[in-house]
Amino acid sequence: MWDVAEELKAMLVFAEHRYYGESLPFGNNSFKDSRYLNYLTSEQALADFAVLIKYLKRTIPGAKNQPVIALGGSYGGMLAAWFRMKYPHMVVGALAASAPIWHFSNLVPCGVFMKIVTEDFRKSGPNCSETIHNSWGAITRLAGTGSGLHWLSEALHLCTPLRNSQDVQHLKGWISETWINLAMVDYPYESNFLQPLPAWPIKVVCKYLNNPSLSDAQLLQNIFQALNIYYNYSGQARCLNISETTTSNLGTQGWSYQACTEMVMPFCTNGIDDMFEPRSWNFREYSDDCFKQWGVRPRPAWITTVYGGRNISSHSNIVFSNGELDPWSGGGVTKDITDTLVAITIPEGAHHLDLRARNAFDPTTVLLARSLEVRHMKQWIRDFYASQRKKH
Amino acid sequence: MWDVAEELKAMLVFAEHRYYGESLPFGNNSFKDSRYLNYLTSEQALADFAVLIKYLKRTIPGAKNQPVIALGGSYGGMLAAWFRMKYPHMVVGALAASAPIWHFSNLVPCGVFMKIVTEDFRKSGPNCSETIHNSWGAITRLAGTGSGLHWLSEALHLCTPLRNSQDVQHLKGWISETWINLAMVDYPYESNFLQPLPAWPIKVVCKYLNNPSLSDAQLLQNIFQALNIYYNYSGQARCLNISETTTSNLGTQGWSYQACTEMVMPFCTNGIDDMFEPRSWNFREYSDDCFKQWGVRPRPAWITTVYGGRNISSHSNIVFSNGELDPWSGGGVTKDITDTLVAITIPEGAHHLDLRARNAFDPTTVLLARSLEVRHMKQWIRDFYASQRKKH
Repeated sequence: MWDVAEELKAMLVFAEHRYYGESLPFGNNSFKDSRYLNYLTSEQALADFAVLIKYLKRTIPGAKNQPVIALGGSYGGMLAAWFRMKYPHMVVGALAASAPIWHFSNLVPCGVFMKIVTEDFRKSGPNCSETIHNSWGAITRLAGTGSGLHWLSEALHLCTPLRNSQDVQHLKGWISETWINLAMVDYPYESNFLQPLPAWPIKVVCKYLNNPSLSDAQLLQNIFQALNIYYNYSGQARCLNISETTTSNLGTQGWSYQACTEMVMPFCTNGIDDMFEPRSWNFREYSDDCFKQWGVRPRPAWITTVYGGRNISSHSNIVFSNGELDPWSGGGVTKDITDTLVAITIPEGAHHLDLRARNAFDPTTVLLARSLEVRHMKQWIRDFYASQRKKH
Repeated sequence: MWDVAEELKAMLVFAEHRYYGESLPFGNNSFKDSRYLNYLTSEQALADFAVLIKYLKRTIPGAKNQPVIALGGSYGGMLAAWFRMKYPHMVVGALAASAPIWHFSNLVPCGVFMKIVTEDFRKSGPNCSETIHNSWGAITRLAGTGSGLHWLSEALHLCTPLRNSQDVQHLKGWISETWINLAMVDYPYESNFLQPLPAWPIKVVCKYLNNPSLSDAQLLQNIFQALNIYYNYSGQARCLNISETTTSNLGTQGWSYQACTEMVMPFCTNGIDDMFEPRSWNFREYSDDCFKQWGVRPRPAWITTVYGGRNISSHSNIVFSNGELDPWSGGGVTKDITDTLVAITIPEGAHHLDLRARNAFDPTTVLLARSLEVRHMKQWIRDFYASQRKKH
């Protein structure tokens, strides 16, 4: 975005979403109970952006009659797309990078996400996804005895030893999330988004995961080596903490509440199309967990009601970009809808690679994507000025 | 709408707006204080319509894949237009009849409304608007003495005698509103929208208002005759009650709150372009009154922020119809914006005449308007089926 802003002589504005970062409407009480959290919705966030743009146009000299473009990645990409849909008078277009706007209701199969994660590992090294596939049974078997549980905690260098089957379930979830995160940040160069990582980290991880037929203990030792790449690339960690999967603060509290109200994304695995233990999508359980945690129950149909689901062809000027390595691309728009609702896919891209700064190791496909994106932006700006001239 | 529904083989659904009629979310407490009124916004109403349409499509056999059209008049017309703008995936188009979507902020001059009212009276009889113009001074002079005040109360057959200058101000406001209402319902046949009235009621009223040069007392006696047409066409009223101007319940409470939050419509008069006493638009006073009445202060810029003001050209499939006799047409869309955002004006039409049932006295212009509206609706429906076929 910095590179493109310079090219387009644009001002970059990073709008902080309410309830994230320092934008806490009720200070320390903001997450206290659902009474304070009522104002945390995507619609309210979009309205904030509208008010912000009006304010900036009014107060910044020269900004008044300038075209504005919305940009965002991931949830921010959904917001960018939705903002153009709901406030087309405010922005001439939107770049929605890695925005899974269709990962709701039954718009895409609930297994698509984990299938892509699996595919990333399958392609990154021989036997890699099979090794992971076999690891779950190995964990289950080892955890069946007290000494096995102890051995597992030691072998995986866990900061807190496993005590019971609940801990083991938690461990499996934490390992799964690690593989997911690796799929999201499988970038072609060293990076530091969720964790400090080497270039093409899945390839590095898969070097340790090339033999699915080892004994349970040997297999788990290799799993540890792989996890250690993700959690200890810097070499500073003395143990692995299964209560966290990212170093940076991505606003997990805010997202957890949103996931329990509007942002209900169904996920599932079957262990056949993916390398995970089978788990079906259980909305009732999901809803009960939400009620326990936040005192609210989700409205799974709301997002498609308000933002249109797959029926968005009457909108215009949105570029949906997706990296094919990115598991979120499964819920994204990856085919053109109309001439002005276009999809750009980046075969060698992970999660919103196109939004990252230029890098010497950028694959050609992301360079191409970026130049296409800029071409669309320039067209939106030209159309804006043409319609301005027509008015006067 | 009944006539057209038959022609299009459509189901008609009248969705009651929350906080109006029987749709009271907190029962008798709904208007108790702003805590309960927080949920009364146009956005919430639109969301209700979206949820309702989804529900109807799910539950009514055969409704699932049918196209839907939004229709409405007045505020309902604004909602119809805004619904198509915000939920284009829900309705293939909207007919916004007499919808003053631009009567906000400074999108149109604040005097345009009263200017049209005046024009209606000017054209409906010789000296009619001048007579009304002169009546305000006559009232002021008569009300200057105790005996004059008494005489006025008698001459106008008021149910409650005037006691002080505040009552006189109230009387003037009530008379003004009567002229406004007559302008809104200046229909070509007997009708019963705000009051039971004869055909072309302004013409009938103006028969009594053809001499602006009479003495104050004679002039006011004529004003009474005119008011009596509006308030006593049935001949049942024994006196005139200046605390009400309409017989039907239009949900004044709900609208009063909405006018004090989102729906801030600036009005003013100057006594030159219109026949009223000069009164400038005073937002501070307006806001203070709102605070006194509801404990809230209005956000006058919000409606244009959320619905785009004049910048709505990226939307599609909305017909804006306006009667030229209707004072609300001053804040309406009366010129085409694009090929699919079209304006239909009805020279002999008052407030949403086109939405009323067919009548033998309908002027040709409203017949033409209705047939144009139906033509647009049929086009939207054809486009809908064409795009459905393309998908499969």
